[in-house]
Amino acid sequence: MRIAVDAFGGDNAPCEIVKGAVMAVNKFDCDVVLVGDEQTIASILENEEYSKEKITVKHASEVVQNDDSATLSVRRKKDSSMVVALNLVKEGEADAVVSAGNTGAYLTAAFMVLGRIEGIKRPALGACMPNKNGMTVIVDSGANSDCKPEYLVQFAHMGSIYSENVFGVKSPKVGLLNIGVEEKKGNSLAKETYALLKAEKGINFTGNIEAREVPSGKADVLVCDGFSGNVVIKLIEGVAITLFDMLKDVFYKSIVTKIAAAILKPGLKEVKKSMDASEYGGAPLLGVNGPVIKAHGNSDAKSIHNAIKSAMLFSQTNVNDKIREFLNSSADEKIEE
Amino acid sequence: MRIAVDAFGGDNAPCEIVKGAVMAVNKFDCDVVLVGDEQTIASILENEEYSKEKITVKHASEVVQNDDSATLSVRRKKDSSMVVALNLVKEGEADAVVSAGNTGAYLTAAFMVLGRIEGIKRPALGACMPNKNGMTVIVDSGANSDCKPEYLVQFAHMGSIYSENVFGVKSPKVGLLNIGVEEKKGNSLAKETYALLKAEKGINFTGNIEAREVPSGKADVLVCDGFSGNVVIKLIEGVAITLFDMLKDVFYKSIVTKIAAAILKPGLKEVKKSMDASEYGGAPLLGVNGPVIKAHGNSDAKSIHNAIKSAMLFSQTNVNDKIREFLNSSADEKIEE
Repeated sequence: MRIAVDAFGGDNAPCEIVKGAVMAVNKFDCDVVLVGDEQTIASILENEEYSKEKITVKHASEVVQNDDSATLSVRRKKDSSMVVALNLVKEGEADAVVSAGNTGAYLTAAFMVLGRIEGIKRPALGACMPNKNGMTVIVDSGANSDCKPEYLVQFAHMGSIYSENVFGVKSPKVGLLNIGVEEKKGNSLAKETYALLKAEKGINFTGNIEAREVPSGKADVLVCDGFSGNVVIKLIEGVAITLFDMLKDVFYKSIVTKIAAAILKPGLKEVKKSMDASEYGGAPLLGVNGPVIKAHGNSDAKSIHNAIKSAMLFSQTNVNDKIREFLNSSADEKIEE
Repeated sequence: MRIAVDAFGGDNAPCEIVKGAVMAVNKFDCDVVLVGDEQTIASILENEEYSKEKITVKHASEVVQNDDSATLSVRRKKDSSMVVALNLVKEGEADAVVSAGNTGAYLTAAFMVLGRIEGIKRPALGACMPNKNGMTVIVDSGANSDCKPEYLVQFAHMGSIYSENVFGVKSPKVGLLNIGVEEKKGNSLAKETYALLKAEKGINFTGNIEAREVPSGKADVLVCDGFSGNVVIKLIEGVAITLFDMLKDVFYKSIVTKIAAAILKPGLKEVKKSMDASEYGGAPLLGVNGPVIKAHGNSDAKSIHNAIKSAMLFSQTNVNDKIREFLNSSADEKIEE
């Protein structure tokens, strides 16, 4: 198992990315190819301890910046760490790829370099958020701002396959993000999608999910357009940050409250962690030919290490083959009909 | 100042609604007309202390239930507490109206009984959420699931007028809910709306707002379609509830943590309150002929008392007249052009 990692993508690149790769090879049974400026990477690696044969460096002279245009950067920066990392998967030199860089550029590059899985209408991002009982895969969480109902049906299948294989959920509950639980609620996209999902075979559709129920774990897979899905994941982040900021003010009020807060600190840390998307190893890009993981832009070493683990699982469990199987079987059904 | 209150709308009706009305008349310079079954209301009022002349009861024999269809319930239940309360405003017997009942039915009833303000394309719900510095008015937060860009421009104006008059914000910052800060980001609705808002006079448009920034107070008015807006308000609620549930587990772990939690309790309560929409007096329905406030479905007495205060402010500050003035001036401008 060999994971390509874009060492120059993300707010904390390259230092935290390289350190995350080191953490991963020390912990998991995998090798990592760090992609980016050779000298810089080497100088960071110098101070790290790990089995030297487990990390190799692939030089790339360019970096896709956060404000680069998605399409242009991919076309023009062919020797960027992001594009070179994706090419390693295409050429079979890596089993999966991780980047914390510019999301738009990464998605575009992944489509262009690896291509869609045949039959997939739109690849989608499946952000994984913790809930009370486990994890919710939110598809689409940002790849497609404007969606058609038939895209969302495929998102439901891809999300289910990911949830079942990577998180071990049997017959994952699929919920449709909506503004009411009743069948006729929502905008036209939600109404039409509801009808299609209800009739769809091979998924465990459990109906509409209101946003307030997302953290409760009522759904293992939350299906939505990429605009709403992105609003959901970013808002969860924003609310959690604001709440913990407010709690800090409560804790620092006096010496007594500071002592009380110190007693609760280990528990509070756990809660904070469980609300923190970066703890959960990034989002799979579902529907392209190759396991692609998008790590959070502000990933630190720990998150990159988690993202590498997700990439390993994504590859090991053959999620993409199972997506192809589903597409073949549904194509067969159509022919039989 | 006289506020009509639907005593039979909401999960805790009629008891908490009646008690909320009592709290309001004891605290504010206003009268309340409680609408609903006369005998039931009288029996609750019997045990309450207040100046008898400040609360009157208007009998209504029917109740709109939460699972009633919006249009049918309004057409068929003409003697429901909700419809009768709205009629009091129409007939000039009340200055504003509050209900915590079925949202869909309430909006439909408000359109049908009071009618849209002439020139308003779509009335919208303006949920008010606390942020770090004050309040954010989220328009639309649920009245219109499918929207056109020109509706959102009117939402921006109505939200600004409400924010300025009711919350005293000078030149309220208007943000467009989007999945990136750059101008070209988002779905087609967001892109087209951005262009219109940028060119629009009379509002202080400050650009796109990502969902993670909503709680930070970057915008006083957050403009969005009713589907996304509803997702936002319900998700904030859901995340806050889940977080406080998790904190409870931390607090009850041992005797020591229980003591620590007890010390922090007053501060924690404040934080919880500040994340609780029901503390903030409900959402104005903007764009109909009459001040209409929707209180949260699970409102208790305190929230109803807050909603009555919002209704008073909505009426006293002549928000609807100012919406009419804006519509007239923009119509004049068009003629001049």
